[in-house]
Amino acid sequence: MTTGPTTSAIPTIPPARYVERLAAAQTLVNQAGLAALLVGVGADLRYLMGYVALPLERLTMLVVPAAGRTRLVVPRLEAAPARTSPGAAGGEVEIVTWDETDDPHALVAGLVRADLEPTAGRGIAVAVSDTLWASHVLALGDRLGDARLSLASAVLRELRMIKDADEIELLRRAARAADRVVAAIAAGPLIGRTEADVAREVRERLLTEGHEEAHFAIVGSGPNSASPHHEASDRVIRAGEPIVLDIGGALGGYGSDITRTLWVTGGDPDRGPDERFRHLFGVLYDVQAAATNAARPGARCEDVDRVARDRIEAEGYGERFFHRTGHGIGLEGHEHPYLVAGNGEALVEGMAFSVEPGIYFEGDYGARIEDIVVCGPNGPMVLNEAPRELYVVDG
Amino acid sequence: MTTGPTTSAIPTIPPARYVERLAAAQTLVNQAGLAALLVGVGADLRYLMGYVALPLERLTMLVVPAAGRTRLVVPRLEAAPARTSPGAAGGEVEIVTWDETDDPHALVAGLVRADLEPTAGRGIAVAVSDTLWASHVLALGDRLGDARLSLASAVLRELRMIKDADEIELLRRAARAADRVVAAIAAGPLIGRTEADVAREVRERLLTEGHEEAHFAIVGSGPNSASPHHEASDRVIRAGEPIVLDIGGALGGYGSDITRTLWVTGGDPDRGPDERFRHLFGVLYDVQAAATNAARPGARCEDVDRVARDRIEAEGYGERFFHRTGHGIGLEGHEHPYLVAGNGEALVEGMAFSVEPGIYFEGDYGARIEDIVVCGPNGPMVLNEAPRELYVVDG
Repeated sequence: MTTGPTTSAIPTIPPARYVERLAAAQTLVNQAGLAALLVGVGADLRYLMGYVALPLERLTMLVVPAAGRTRLVVPRLEAAPARTSPGAAGGEVEIVTWDETDDPHALVAGLVRADLEPTAGRGIAVAVSDTLWASHVLALGDRLGDARLSLASAVLRELRMIKDADEIELLRRAARAADRVVAAIAAGPLIGRTEADVAREVRERLLTEGHEEAHFAIVGSGPNSASPHHEASDRVIRAGEPIVLDIGGALGGYGSDITRTLWVTGGDPDRGPDERFRHLFGVLYDVQAAATNAARPGARCEDVDRVARDRIEAEGYGERFFHRTGHGIGLEGHEHPYLVAGNGEALVEGMAFSVEPGIYFEGDYGARIEDIVVCGPNGPMVLNEAPRELYVVDG
Repeated sequence: MTTGPTTSAIPTIPPARYVERLAAAQTLVNQAGLAALLVGVGADLRYLMGYVALPLERLTMLVVPAAGRTRLVVPRLEAAPARTSPGAAGGEVEIVTWDETDDPHALVAGLVRADLEPTAGRGIAVAVSDTLWASHVLALGDRLGDARLSLASAVLRELRMIKDADEIELLRRAARAADRVVAAIAAGPLIGRTEADVAREVRERLLTEGHEEAHFAIVGSGPNSASPHHEASDRVIRAGEPIVLDIGGALGGYGSDITRTLWVTGGDPDRGPDERFRHLFGVLYDVQAAATNAARPGARCEDVDRVARDRIEAEGYGERFFHRTGHGIGLEGHEHPYLVAGNGEALVEGMAFSVEPGIYFEGDYGARIEDIVVCGPNGPMVLNEAPRELYVVDG
């Protein structure tokens, strides 16, 4: 049984950082005029507490009031891991447990109301984490009476979008690990295998290279390369066709996400990419470099998207690039900021995102190039180092 | 690079089944007086359509109206996998795509309203899938005006709780695969390794044995065995202590979930379980068998819990069994029905659930035994075959 590298080599966020983040979050809750921020299991909770749990039907909820004590409500059977989590170990966060026959949503509602003036019981405003399940959202809405619910991202996005040095280092490690997986897959063999089999190898290699989770492995061969979110299928890879390889997972909690396009020849020079594909890929290569270069402090998200889109449109491929240019990445695979038309938000040093234009001929083939980029003080810092050129390989 | 068994051997749900399920869901929507059922990415969507996608910020939503055409709303870049999904391939479900700058929540709200009488625009009732993200719930609530939102489980639970023969076969395969992983881990080595390292081996073996995903690997050694949802840590396993091993994942979409308790001796007879642990485990063994035996058609969920709890309380361990006796299992690791005090629902043939009492001495040690059980026509069918006795092993 193979075992991957131990996790001890992966840098961790210092516990004091969670104290800072929780304090910053409380300040933002107060400034936003909210009674409380209610954070369920997921990336927000990991960001604020370093606490990781499975999202399940039992409620786990961090209650950050506008003033007063922050509390983490957990099922009693999860009290031990909650107490020893980085954000709680220092004693700043009180752990409140509930038993199997208790109503945890009523418990949370009671904690929210307990921190309010007696006259402020009605029509209060609370924010809930964006990925909180409907089962919890509706139950909380019910127990809180006529509270106004909004999304936690409105409060936390400023904090979470700007990555600190430790977070960037984790993103870099994740990117480099994904780079190594791309190199291994490109080295073959590929021809004669199903997409699903290659995808399974991708997932295994992501874990071997230090990821704790492999989240996706798009292996789009031949016509499937024209489907941006193709699910790896039982299609057998053949010589004389492209493969779009878009893979990612999490390392130390932080996401990797890389796309490279291959062309498998079977060693036969006559089965290389045709002229149209070479042209398409040349355009894409230039566009991806130009969009990356546009990602600097002050540039608006929609402007980066526009750089990519204008050039692709100028080549007559506009209709064939039908997705946004990129998405933020961090503790979630997709998070703010989104590089999409209509998003006027300006980039700030420390933001991390993908730059991933693609060109797709439906039913025929397609190509995409994707890197993870951090907005540096003077321009883009590209975290992936795998070559971006078309990988023309024997397969 | 090792590769697991191919997925071709795993039985699949026949496409015609999805047509039946969708028709049954629409009937239930109508009977419940709902305008529509709105199903996001997750187990409900997989159940109704066989369509699997990552839950992300882009909205994917099945709209099942009380009458009329069922539609699947998907981001344009996911149109191809949506169209070829088992539930859509027959043409019964219309695929509706949205572009990156569209408002998909407004699109869904428009579809819901289009199927209504013009006078019925206000105060309509819709159900949303229980695991739908708050970002989607709040946006839909906004676009639907003053619609009343409720949970899809109220409509779909009857369908999803009763497993058909194909589903039971998938649960059985998942259970047997998990059985084999337990046997491999119990065979050692264990002493000198960290819990986290053993957990990594568990995850790898779950995949090798045919699971497509490894969801959790609780390895609670020594005092950590008293924490039911312990997160595998850097604690090193030693001779003379128990290990609670609670592992599971998904195979063909269906969950495995097994718990066995080990005691590692290091080969030294003097380091076997102490008298108190032997007594505790003997009680637990009998209790788990009794609760399993109580799981038959007509028995109420709370009665099965009561059988376990009464016996544990009679032994003076009542305070040390502080979680419910079990949870339903299928396309979700935890789903209806829950074997918990207060749940008066009667068991019906085809329901599948865990039976997992535990006894925990905090700071000292604990034990748990868990099987997946299907309610058969005349009594319980236990899917796991791994021995339930205390595994006293060299380690």
